[in-house]
Amino acid sequence: MDKETILAARQAHLGPSLSLSYQEPLQIVRGWGAYLYDENGRPYLDVVNNVCHVGHSHPHVVAALAEQAALLNTNTRYLHPNIVRYAERLLATLPEPLEVCFFVCSGSEANELALRLARTATGVEDLIVIDGAYHGNTQALIDISPYKHDGPGGRGAPSFVHTAWMPDPYRGEFKGYGRDAARQYAAHVAQLIAEMQAEGRGLAGMIAEPLLGCGGQIVLPEGYLQEAFTAVRAAGGLCIVDEVQVGFGRVGSHFWAFETQGVVPDIVTMGKPIGNGHPLGAVVTTRAIAEAFDNGMEYFNTFGGNPVSCAVGTAVLDVIANEGLQENAARAGAHLLRGLAGLMDRHPLIGDVRGLGLFIGVELVRDRTTLEPAAAEATLIVERMKDAGILLSIDGPLHNVLKLKPPLVFSEQNADFLVQTLDAVLAELVDPAAV
Amino acid sequence: MDKETILAARQAHLGPSLSLSYQEPLQIVRGWGAYLYDENGRPYLDVVNNVCHVGHSHPHVVAALAEQAALLNTNTRYLHPNIVRYAERLLATLPEPLEVCFFVCSGSEANELALRLARTATGVEDLIVIDGAYHGNTQALIDISPYKHDGPGGRGAPSFVHTAWMPDPYRGEFKGYGRDAARQYAAHVAQLIAEMQAEGRGLAGMIAEPLLGCGGQIVLPEGYLQEAFTAVRAAGGLCIVDEVQVGFGRVGSHFWAFETQGVVPDIVTMGKPIGNGHPLGAVVTTRAIAEAFDNGMEYFNTFGGNPVSCAVGTAVLDVIANEGLQENAARAGAHLLRGLAGLMDRHPLIGDVRGLGLFIGVELVRDRTTLEPAAAEATLIVERMKDAGILLSIDGPLHNVLKLKPPLVFSEQNADFLVQTLDAVLAELVDPAAV
Repeated sequence: MDKETILAARQAHLGPSLSLSYQEPLQIVRGWGAYLYDENGRPYLDVVNNVCHVGHSHPHVVAALAEQAALLNTNTRYLHPNIVRYAERLLATLPEPLEVCFFVCSGSEANELALRLARTATGVEDLIVIDGAYHGNTQALIDISPYKHDGPGGRGAPSFVHTAWMPDPYRGEFKGYGRDAARQYAAHVAQLIAEMQAEGRGLAGMIAEPLLGCGGQIVLPEGYLQEAFTAVRAAGGLCIVDEVQVGFGRVGSHFWAFETQGVVPDIVTMGKPIGNGHPLGAVVTTRAIAEAFDNGMEYFNTFGGNPVSCAVGTAVLDVIANEGLQENAARAGAHLLRGLAGLMDRHPLIGDVRGLGLFIGVELVRDRTTLEPAAAEATLIVERMKDAGILLSIDGPLHNVLKLKPPLVFSEQNADFLVQTLDAVLAELVDPAAV
Repeated sequence: MDKETILAARQAHLGPSLSLSYQEPLQIVRGWGAYLYDENGRPYLDVVNNVCHVGHSHPHVVAALAEQAALLNTNTRYLHPNIVRYAERLLATLPEPLEVCFFVCSGSEANELALRLARTATGVEDLIVIDGAYHGNTQALIDISPYKHDGPGGRGAPSFVHTAWMPDPYRGEFKGYGRDAARQYAAHVAQLIAEMQAEGRGLAGMIAEPLLGCGGQIVLPEGYLQEAFTAVRAAGGLCIVDEVQVGFGRVGSHFWAFETQGVVPDIVTMGKPIGNGHPLGAVVTTRAIAEAFDNGMEYFNTFGGNPVSCAVGTAVLDVIANEGLQENAARAGAHLLRGLAGLMDRHPLIGDVRGLGLFIGVELVRDRTTLEPAAAEATLIVERMKDAGILLSIDGPLHNVLKLKPPLVFSEQNADFLVQTLDAVLAELVDPAAV
């Protein structure tokens, strides 16, 4: 099937709200390691795909999937070793008292369940969310996702959702990664709580990504979650950390991104990378919260925790450990960050380079003083990088942040190629004749 | 791992709200065709699993899964033939004007999206649901599932959910499968609409299973959905049919269960059998509704519509067609219904035998006049059937309906074995010495 035929069939048979990347969309037919290949065999370095976390089509993961699918795939109402083996492996990566797993089919299902856990345990509906956040595609998750409900087609935040300032060290009111900025942003969380209490409202909790994804690849100032969570817990709320985009070793220094903020959440949600593309998600919480949720209403998830999905999840953990991918994320990520920062001298369009491990943002501005966002330039750069064989995406409320989140097999050589190519593309942007 | 070890590890690491079937839970390690096998190799005829629809571990489906997973698994933002091929295949089974597909990861995600489609297209939140219905595990779906929100741990229906009488031809106020009963039950839908209109409320639509699953394997009286949908449409509402439990040829006479009611819905949702156990779901709707949903807010589903899931979905459609499984459901289902009905003479405990194709309910009563439900007996029978090598489940608001929904490869010989075994178990219940 050629591209035009596929495109026409998509227009005929799929929802028009389903988007495609790039002005001239790519047909991708093969994936291997950090590379995707189009229908002509042309390779593209994939710096977008944080789902195929341990590398596209990883043979250890594919073998686990195929072997278990050929044996048995059924639900959790029978005993099977895979689910408990996987739960043990996953829990071994998490601190006490996170000791109870729920398995679901996606990050959206995980965040949905997290809200149900928090609301059932506290008996309260109100939640604090961070501005610009995206937590999933169900109605309850759009309600807590300012990225969606304050964007096109959105209807704003419902009365029970309270939006905290985005703790953005680059563009926000309080600059830098220090404890002072963290304290000032966290003070807004405390202020929201005080306002809620004045209105007689309770607090179910706060949900936060430990690095802000759709917010624009933002690294939180030091201690922000500590301060915010202290305020939330003082008000009787639970602390939910959404690791869907950033977990499983991506930040390099730690397995979980929340660890970089020195906190232990009450509920952790997982998705995207957990199954290397297989539809899988998980929620891990404390025994007390899981018991409060056990109020007589069964939680059953038809596919969640089936032997095939658990075999896949276990295989992903195997590969991360066996191939040292967390360490690679630290090493290649630091190398990439250094290379990108090195471009700032020559390219005033780069306002900020930030990230942890292989979760990196390059914020483009037309003026480093006014921070005027360079959204059109970002779009152009992503198109030209594609022409040069590198896939990037754009995020952030101003659509001016290059989003880098490759599979964790991304190497230092890949980083060098990316930096050199971006250097050339940025030069071309200023002087098209120079290239 | 032995059963005790798995059980102890589940108690330690999984949520306590996760249930197990049977007093002495089974460890199941293998599945093939209509059979599951325990750790000792003992076969059990699986009459529970409507998820592994074309038979456990079907080699054609497993091969499609393994082959595509080894090649590529990525999201819908690149062009790939699998998603459009699958959409074309799926749409070919559906009547006009159902022509737009959305792919998701589960039946819950499908019903969630269906509600978002209906509410966005109409601008109204209010929905009519059938009493006893279950539509999924997210908060918005618990809100529309009386089975959950009126059950243990539930908080009742929210103000925007309006519950229609369950059109139960056996136990309900209006008896039988005729058009009169249908009209009387549908009149309650019209009455709910009139009440909503008197309060100045609009109507987003009605959601209904074309056979009631958790309601107790209930076959609707003839024309019920026609009458109810006419009233809903006259009020500007959309008609959503939930085929998660009953679709894909299970009813035998038709591919979709809604066809047995002579209606064409505006939105159809699919889950469970669609991927033979692989986490997959779909929503199919009209072009007009899909376009109304395209209001600027992108709907993105990380795993939904990936090339692996679409390969699996296509393989399931292949097997249903190639092995004549819809025809088998009609033939084996009719044979099973006849056999079960034949037990009624000897066993007064059987109050009703009903079903379409391989979706069958056997309602147990202590008295055929008062219809006193025989719930304890149902539990005992299911336990004894398991001892005899046959897996059944129980459903219905009174927990007294034996639920039969085997993989569609279930044969007439399997049906004979089931009927003979149930005959013996029922005899034993009356006179334990007789066995």
